[in-house]
Amino acid sequence: MSKINIKQGHLKVINVGLENFARNITKAGHTAVDVAWKPPLSIDKALRQSIADRKPAMTEANQKALEIIQAGKPALVGMGIAEDLIPGMHKNLILHAGPPISWDKMCGPMRGAIIGALIYEGRAENPEAAEKLAASKEISYAPCHEHNAIGPMAGIISSSMPVFIVQNETSGNFCYATQNEGLGKVLRYGAYSEEVIKRLRWMDAVLYPVLKRAIEDLGKIDLQSLIAQALHMGDEVHNRNRAGTSLLIRQLAPALLRTMQNVEETTQVLSFINGNDHFFLNLSMPAGKAVLDAARKVPNSSLVVAMTRNGTEFGIQLSGFGDAWFTGPALVPDALYFPGYSKADANPDIGDSAITETAGWGGFAIAAAPAIVQFVGGNAADALNYTVSMYEICHGESRNYQIPGLDFRGTPLGIDVIKVVENNLSPIIDTGVAHKDPGVGQVGAGVVNAPMEPFMRAYEALAKN
Amino acid sequence: MSKINIKQGHLKVINVGLENFARNITKAGHTAVDVAWKPPLSIDKALRQSIADRKPAMTEANQKALEIIQAGKPALVGMGIAEDLIPGMHKNLILHAGPPISWDKMCGPMRGAIIGALIYEGRAENPEAAEKLAASKEISYAPCHEHNAIGPMAGIISSSMPVFIVQNETSGNFCYATQNEGLGKVLRYGAYSEEVIKRLRWMDAVLYPVLKRAIEDLGKIDLQSLIAQALHMGDEVHNRNRAGTSLLIRQLAPALLRTMQNVEETTQVLSFINGNDHFFLNLSMPAGKAVLDAARKVPNSSLVVAMTRNGTEFGIQLSGFGDAWFTGPALVPDALYFPGYSKADANPDIGDSAITETAGWGGFAIAAAPAIVQFVGGNAADALNYTVSMYEICHGESRNYQIPGLDFRGTPLGIDVIKVVENNLSPIIDTGVAHKDPGVGQVGAGVVNAPMEPFMRAYEALAKN
Repeated sequence: MSKINIKQGHLKVINVGLENFARNITKAGHTAVDVAWKPPLSIDKALRQSIADRKPAMTEANQKALEIIQAGKPALVGMGIAEDLIPGMHKNLILHAGPPISWDKMCGPMRGAIIGALIYEGRAENPEAAEKLAASKEISYAPCHEHNAIGPMAGIISSSMPVFIVQNETSGNFCYATQNEGLGKVLRYGAYSEEVIKRLRWMDAVLYPVLKRAIEDLGKIDLQSLIAQALHMGDEVHNRNRAGTSLLIRQLAPALLRTMQNVEETTQVLSFINGNDHFFLNLSMPAGKAVLDAARKVPNSSLVVAMTRNGTEFGIQLSGFGDAWFTGPALVPDALYFPGYSKADANPDIGDSAITETAGWGGFAIAAAPAIVQFVGGNAADALNYTVSMYEICHGESRNYQIPGLDFRGTPLGIDVIKVVENNLSPIIDTGVAHKDPGVGQVGAGVVNAPMEPFMRAYEALAKN
Repeated sequence: MSKINIKQGHLKVINVGLENFARNITKAGHTAVDVAWKPPLSIDKALRQSIADRKPAMTEANQKALEIIQAGKPALVGMGIAEDLIPGMHKNLILHAGPPISWDKMCGPMRGAIIGALIYEGRAENPEAAEKLAASKEISYAPCHEHNAIGPMAGIISSSMPVFIVQNETSGNFCYATQNEGLGKVLRYGAYSEEVIKRLRWMDAVLYPVLKRAIEDLGKIDLQSLIAQALHMGDEVHNRNRAGTSLLIRQLAPALLRTMQNVEETTQVLSFINGNDHFFLNLSMPAGKAVLDAARKVPNSSLVVAMTRNGTEFGIQLSGFGDAWFTGPALVPDALYFPGYSKADANPDIGDSAITETAGWGGFAIAAAPAIVQFVGGNAADALNYTVSMYEICHGESRNYQIPGLDFRGTPLGIDVIKVVENNLSPIIDTGVAHKDPGVGQVGAGVVNAPMEPFMRAYEALAKN
C-alpha cells in the first residue's frame, strides 16, 4: 500500500474568479482576481512516477474515450416496465443508487425507499413486514449502474415500476430511469407513507400509459437538443430543471392530445408535470449515463464514467477499469439547509444524480444557471467560478453543450482522475440533501466537492495497472 | 429655440465592462476595464440651468412615477375582439405602431400590413383595392399607444382582430394586443399574401376561442410572475421569448384540456404556440404598457413612459407630459443581418416593442439573456455591459424583475430624459429589423441605441415647462 494522505472533509474550490463580479463591473475599475492557495496532496513518489510513465498511453486513451462521449446522442425512445426491460431485473431484485451495498449498511432514506417499494409491489402489507422482508435473503440488491439504470437520491427501482427508455443513438446502448415523483413526501427521499404509495400507483396507472403513447406518437424526443437548450435557459439539469421540464411539456403537449384516450387523465398528467420542475431530472440522468456508458472499457483511460453515492459510500467508475468501483465514505454536505433543519439532520450524500456532473452538466455547468444560487447558496460569481475551475480537472470541453455566459464555451467534459488528484481539486456536485431519517424528505441543497478518497484509490489502481 | 447640437447616427454605448470576460476569468489574472470616452452633447447653458433649477421638483416627481411603475402588477385577464374592447375603435380606424403618422408618410412594411388588414377585414378584394382604400379619407389612423393598445413591428390592429386583455391589477387600467403570428410571412412585417390572411383567419376562428376559454378557466395568468421567471431563464422578453412562451404553454395546457371542445383544434393551438418562440412577446408588451400607463400624468416627471417607432419616426412620451409626443427620425439599425441581406435592405426601426425596454426588460435586461448574442451579435460581456450602462440613465432598479448574472440586481427602471441627455447615453433597444419593402419580413436583429433627438426635444420641453 502506497503512502496516501487524504485530507478528510470537503476540499475548498479554488477561487479563480471575481468575488463580487457584479459590483466590480459597475465600478468599471480594475478587478483583482485571487487564486486561493491549495495544499497539494501528499502522493508517494513511486506512485507519481508510475503515473508519469503511463501518461502518454493514458492521454491517448482519454482522447479516445472523450471522443466517444462527445459523439453520444441521447434520446427518449419509449417507456416500459422495469422487469421487461432492465437486464437481469426480477421480482426479488431491487436496484439502488450508488456503489454496491448490503441492507445492513444502508442509510435511512435508502431503507425507507426499499420499504416503500416492497409495499408498492404488494410484497408487504406494512412497513414492519416490508423491513423484515428487505433484510431477509429473499431480496437481493444491486446498483442501478450495474443494470443500465439510474435513479436520483435513494434511486430505488423495483420490478413493476414503469421506466423511461433512453438510448444513446450513436452507440445503441440503453439506460432506464423511473418517472420523477415531485417534491415533498416521495420514495426517492425515503418516504413510504400511504400518500407515497398512492402516487406511485397513479404514476403506474395513469402517468405511464399516457406518456408512453405520446412518446410513441413522437417516435423519440431528442434529449441532446433539450439539454443544450435548457443550458441556455438557466438550467444545469441537476438541481434546476425548470427549463428542461418546460421544453418537455411543449414538445409532449400536442402528442398527448393526438393520442388521448381520456381527457381527465391527460389533464392530470399535464398538471402533474407542470407542478414538478424536477420532472426532467429523470431524463437528464439517463441521458448522461447512456452517453458515458458508451465510453466504458477504453483500456488505459483515466476518465470517470460514473460518480455516485448510496448514502453511505461515494463511488466512481473509470473508463479504463470496466465495472470496478473505487469508493470512500460519503460525506454530509455543507449545504444551504431549509428553515428548521441543519447539518445534524442531513444524510451523507446520496444518489446517482452526480452522473449529470460526470456528463459535464450539474455543478460543471452551473455557470449556465446563475439563478440556482438562490437555492444552493453563493452568488453569481461563484457559479461562474465553479464551472471555470472544473476545466482544470477535465480532459476537454463539450462540443454539444455550451454556457452562454462564458461566450458559449463548451462545458468541462471528461473528468480525469489524474488531474483531480494531482491538482487536489475534486469534482463539484450541485446536490440535494436528504434527511437522515426515512420519510422526512429533502432538507437542503448545496454545491459540494466529491470526497478525494475514491479518486486516490483510482489513481493508485491506474499506477499499478 | 435653444441651441441644440444633435449628433446624428447611433451613439456608441460606453464600454463599462470586460471585453472578454470569459477569457479573462480563465486566465485568472488582472482584468483591465475601459470606459470609452464619449463627447458630451452641446446643450445651451440657459437650457441646462433651467433644468438644474427644476431638478428637485423633477426628482420628487420621478420618485412618485417610479413607485407607480414598481407597484404595477400585469395580468392576462381575458380575450375579446378589438372593436368591443379598445376605446374609440371602429371599423374605419386602423391602429399602428409608433407615434402618429399619415398614410403618405408610412414606410413599406406598415403600408403592407394595412393592406393585409383591409383584405382580412373583407374591405378589399386585392392589394390594389386595399391600397386605394387605405389612402382614401374613409380610413383613419391612430397610434396603438393612444388607444390602450400595443403592437410589435407595424403594430396594425383592425376592428375585428382578437386581442389579449392585459390589466394592471394595481391601478386597474387595461392594455390590448393581438396574438403573435410567428415568423416568416406575417402581417406585422408587412406581408399580406394569401398565406398571411389565411393564418389570421385561423387565429380568429380557432386560436382565439380556444385560448379565450382556457384563460377564462384559469381566471387570470400572472404576467409579472411569468416575466420575472423568464428573466431567470435566459429571456429578455423582447427578442428572446422562448422561456416565457414555454412557461405560458405549461400553464395553459391543463386549462386547454379542461375547456376543450374539439381535440383537433386544441392540438393545432398547442402545436402553433410550440412552433412560435415569440408568442409571449405579445403578452410582455401589453404587460409593459399596462404598468407604464399608470405612471402617465405625474406633473414634472421626466421619466419615459413610452418609446416607440413607426418605421419613419421614433417617438417618446413622458410621465409629466400626458399624451404629448417627442419625435425624431427613426434610424436604420446597425444590426446582424440574415444571410443575403444588408443594411441597404433594412427599414428604419419600427414597432411598439421598445415598450419592453421602457419597462426595464429587452435591451435593459439583456444581461439576463446572454444566449441572445447569437441572434443579435456581440458576446456575453457585451450583454452584461449593455444592462450595466442603462443604470446610468434610469431613476431606479426594479423590485420585481432581477438579473441572476448580476446577483439578482433589479433591472434598470425608469428612463430619465435628463440623464439620457446629460450623460449623452440613449436607451439600448434589442430589436428585430424589417425589410423596407412590404411582404419580405425580418432581415436582421441587433442591439441599437435610440436616436437622441426625441430625448433632446423632451429635455427642451421640460426646461420650458
